[in-house]
Amino acid sequence: MPLPANTFVSACRRQNTSHTPVWLMRQAGRYQPEYRELRAKVGFLELCHRPELAAKVTIDAANWLDTDAAILFADILLILEPMGFDLEFVKGDGPAIHNPVRAAVDVERVLDVETPESLGYVYEAVKLIRRDLPKHRDLIGFAGAPFTLACYAIEGGGSRHYDKAKTFMYQNPQSFYQLMQKLTEATIGYLNAQIAAGADVVQLFDSWVGNLSLRDYVAHVQPHMKRLFEGLTKGVPSIHFGTDTGHLLEAQRDAGGDVIGLDWRANLDESWARLGSGVAVQGNLDPILLLGPWSEIERQTRLILDQAANRPGHIFNLGHGILPSTPPDNVRRLVDFVHEYSKR
Amino acid sequence: MPLPANTFVSACRRQNTSHTPVWLMRQAGRYQPEYRELRAKVGFLELCHRPELAAKVTIDAANWLDTDAAILFADILLILEPMGFDLEFVKGDGPAIHNPVRAAVDVERVLDVETPESLGYVYEAVKLIRRDLPKHRDLIGFAGAPFTLACYAIEGGGSRHYDKAKTFMYQNPQSFYQLMQKLTEATIGYLNAQIAAGADVVQLFDSWVGNLSLRDYVAHVQPHMKRLFEGLTKGVPSIHFGTDTGHLLEAQRDAGGDVIGLDWRANLDESWARLGSGVAVQGNLDPILLLGPWSEIERQTRLILDQAANRPGHIFNLGHGILPSTPPDNVRRLVDFVHEYSKR
Repeated sequence: MPLPANTFVSACRRQNTSHTPVWLMRQAGRYQPEYRELRAKVGFLELCHRPELAAKVTIDAANWLDTDAAILFADILLILEPMGFDLEFVKGDGPAIHNPVRAAVDVERVLDVETPESLGYVYEAVKLIRRDLPKHRDLIGFAGAPFTLACYAIEGGGSRHYDKAKTFMYQNPQSFYQLMQKLTEATIGYLNAQIAAGADVVQLFDSWVGNLSLRDYVAHVQPHMKRLFEGLTKGVPSIHFGTDTGHLLEAQRDAGGDVIGLDWRANLDESWARLGSGVAVQGNLDPILLLGPWSEIERQTRLILDQAANRPGHIFNLGHGILPSTPPDNVRRLVDFVHEYSKR
Repeated sequence: MPLPANTFVSACRRQNTSHTPVWLMRQAGRYQPEYRELRAKVGFLELCHRPELAAKVTIDAANWLDTDAAILFADILLILEPMGFDLEFVKGDGPAIHNPVRAAVDVERVLDVETPESLGYVYEAVKLIRRDLPKHRDLIGFAGAPFTLACYAIEGGGSRHYDKAKTFMYQNPQSFYQLMQKLTEATIGYLNAQIAAGADVVQLFDSWVGNLSLRDYVAHVQPHMKRLFEGLTKGVPSIHFGTDTGHLLEAQRDAGGDVIGLDWRANLDESWARLGSGVAVQGNLDPILLLGPWSEIERQTRLILDQAANRPGHIFNLGHGILPSTPPDNVRRLVDFVHEYSKR
């Protein structure tokens, strides 16, 4: 029996819902045998580039898990391609950018793409998903937030300390500002095109911003995030997500977003009290718990739902993405449990 | 002209001092040309194992930088050797433990070493350092905290998500407890032997504990940390350090330590207000700032010292260790600046 329509969007707006909506970051991904089978035949970037495949992966995961929302299958780094970055996903090593920003002058050659036309395959995937996804599941479009994208663009890939990116920021604050500005404008156009194609909600992934001190966040990131949220199509809820952001929560809220993502570190009730009742919250089970025994998953899920206390505006999620080694049955059982336990 | 004696120890005790004492994590290390030259001839473990070399590296760095304290040159993983772990430092790859704990039964074979005799080379280094280090510089002994050691022991080396360690903790809570207990008792003996050999202060490095949620910290770590701090020789100040612990500060304080380490993420004044006046604080400049221009280093150092407002009990430090690519002159200039700017 389908769940009531639009539970997820309603929760983003802090409206009453019949249960706590749930979706999980990386709900379509390597923990699924079907996904691994497909990826044995199709490279990661190719999968992103083929709308009908991206749509299938997105829809199948949401239907199989029975989540209240589906999230577009894509990657936060896709937007770097039309901006002139040479992006590759190296098997086992993650993303590599072969022409990273290393000097102030490199920022000049980063292309301004206020409406990234060449990402049409993403908008096409959004259209296909929205056409074929059951109506009661909402569709989340997404993009990487400018700081996280800037880290990749400068580091040339993943990083442990983000030392190249932060050193660039300290040494070339004006060029860093320009880079952030270009990323911000491109992201506004990209997300608004996803919205025009049918995304019901958009999420900004500022996955690495938690590495910054509060003072650096306020100086170098927050103004761009304000501009970004202001530039999004009105009336469509937005989710502002980061990890390791316990020290940044108020500053993130002030930057924008209808929903603030919480990672697993902090207590949901204390964090929500700090944020105030003007925003919804999303989170915050430790994804590594899903590798553990069900009894412990259930116990900690209960604790989180009890902390949220059925207040309108809680979306259940993990604190970060599902790990590839996660048993699929734990994931599915978690979604069912959240639905059952949170029924009003 | 030497600085007044025991500034560092006095600050640990929240007594008035003539200036804010400063030392820097990894102040003896790869950013120094002299250190790299020595390491070209001597492997990392060998350097740790040779007291006269470890002492020289320790003393030279403190004298060159003019820090208020020297920290014993050693590694947090050394204690794993007498406990039966096969430890190796692989060039470029960091530490590897060739016989990690992977199943509950593996914990049984971890040796109880309540006074790790085979770490005599460490105590010998402490003796040599205390003999030759100028009296006005205090000597910090140290150990890894049990959770961080357990992560290494289970992961078999470094890790990004600590998924093996945390999964073990969730799946085998009793065996995890036993492992933590063994590590705790060994560490008490190890630190007390360092104190007996001449360490003026000891620091516990719980470098990875910030990955845990507050509820997991309270359940799986805090009881052991309480026991550990209770077991330390009375009258010798202790520093309780972690990174990414903004959500754990009160719980860490309740576990113990005269000084609580703060990483660079949070504001020092707000964190100290949360901790209360019963503890000193250590921190908290972003180590990556030291790769940036001096103007920005000075500006942020001022901000931190202004936040501490010359209250007794602030020890200036970085939020984590100096990175190898740091220009040595920035480090030395930082120490001088802290001394100058904080003169009462």
